[in-house]
Amino acid sequence: MKILALDTATVVATAAIADEEKLYSETTIHSKKKNHSERLMLLIEEVLKNSGLELKDVDLFSCTVGPGSFTGLRIAIATVKGLAQSLNKPVIPLSTLEALAYNLPFCKEIICPIIDAQRDQVYTCFYEWTEEGLQALTQESVYSIEELLNIITGQGKGVVLLGDGVKKIPYEALEKYKNLLKVAPVSSRMPKASSLASLSLDVAKKGVTTTYSNLEPNYMRKSQAEIQMELKKNNS
Amino acid sequence: MKILALDTATVVATAAIADEEKLYSETTIHSKKKNHSERLMLLIEEVLKNSGLELKDVDLFSCTVGPGSFTGLRIAIATVKGLAQSLNKPVIPLSTLEALAYNLPFCKEIICPIIDAQRDQVYTCFYEWTEEGLQALTQESVYSIEELLNIITGQGKGVVLLGDGVKKIPYEALEKYKNLLKVAPVSSRMPKASSLASLSLDVAKKGVTTTYSNLEPNYMRKSQAEIQMELKKNNS
Repeated sequence: MKILALDTATVVATAAIADEEKLYSETTIHSKKKNHSERLMLLIEEVLKNSGLELKDVDLFSCTVGPGSFTGLRIAIATVKGLAQSLNKPVIPLSTLEALAYNLPFCKEIICPIIDAQRDQVYTCFYEWTEEGLQALTQESVYSIEELLNIITGQGKGVVLLGDGVKKIPYEALEKYKNLLKVAPVSSRMPKASSLASLSLDVAKKGVTTTYSNLEPNYMRKSQAEIQMELKKNNS
Repeated sequence: MKILALDTATVVATAAIADEEKLYSETTIHSKKKNHSERLMLLIEEVLKNSGLELKDVDLFSCTVGPGSFTGLRIAIATVKGLAQSLNKPVIPLSTLEALAYNLPFCKEIICPIIDAQRDQVYTCFYEWTEEGLQALTQESVYSIEELLNIITGQGKGVVLLGDGVKKIPYEALEKYKNLLKVAPVSSRMPKASSLASLSLDVAKKGVTTTYSNLEPNYMRKSQAEIQMELKKNNS
């Protein structure tokens, strides 16, 4: 089963094609300019060409649906919706946090992906790699950096941080809690479509696919624009 | 320090640019045709373009020098030699096995990368992820599949297999020893230039770089052609 996996939830745009046997091709770009809308179709063309495959060879499309950048999420979701509808293929929507955690298979520490949620907050969830594979230990949540550090230091187990939220952790905190807090190497720190593809294969094996019409972003909280609109309404 | 990392030791061609802060870009191709010589310069152009960088921005070049396919190794090494000489930049030569093991940061199991050595044999080495990072537990060696399985089952600890040698392990053995033998997911199974780049950053931090003229392949054993030539000589 050939999966085309896409992730544009953060500043990274990443696309990969894999099946149960191999990763055909993967391209990942950490762009200063967040021009995912211009780049994503080119990225898809690139991984198809590098895989020696055409769109019609793809059996299943997957993308992350959040949490993440509102615009970024919409770009990957809209693209997968369009491809899956026109080619009449199933889709798998996955958590950006879970796909990030899948960057660290067989990790001995608790895995804590953190995604920048703006306003001094991060989206996060705690995972553990068990005999059955990757398991979530908590619900996905929004925390301030201080709250997150309190939770981690309170539970006292070693944690590996990854994701674009890592840059929000003060250097002093990383130093102070260096026995507990590790940071994933740059090779595994940001979203990789290959990890998303592997996770999608695990999910597809259980038969959990859906159709393009059920693909919806999981923003986890309202956008700044929505909050401002509601405030205006309540004050008027 | 911006590193351009290349690996063409197996059927996979992979290139990435990273520094201490981020992975700028990575492209990985698992090709049926082993046309690395045609592809590698295009791959380099692609990761440079995707990174928004030019060759002159690269501070250091790294590639794997073996073990691996004789032709594959020579392609990456010749390319890095040419680039490093013309731009007067240092190089870091690394083991294909160690770079593969770096695909699994913080792994709780023993990491056992295996590379197809033809003639029912594999190149391998055992690694462990410790508080100090990735540590080799053994020398790099050539074993038959039977010898390798005897070593793994003899020591009794859980092992994660990865690399193109995985396909040489009989399905029956994977089933029989499934409590001990795990296989890395497709996302982490084959060489990734991002892992090589992260490992190169670790090595560069210790100041262990060299010049292009010291870049030599580590074939680990003689090629079939060399063996046949020696046999002919001895029999004449």
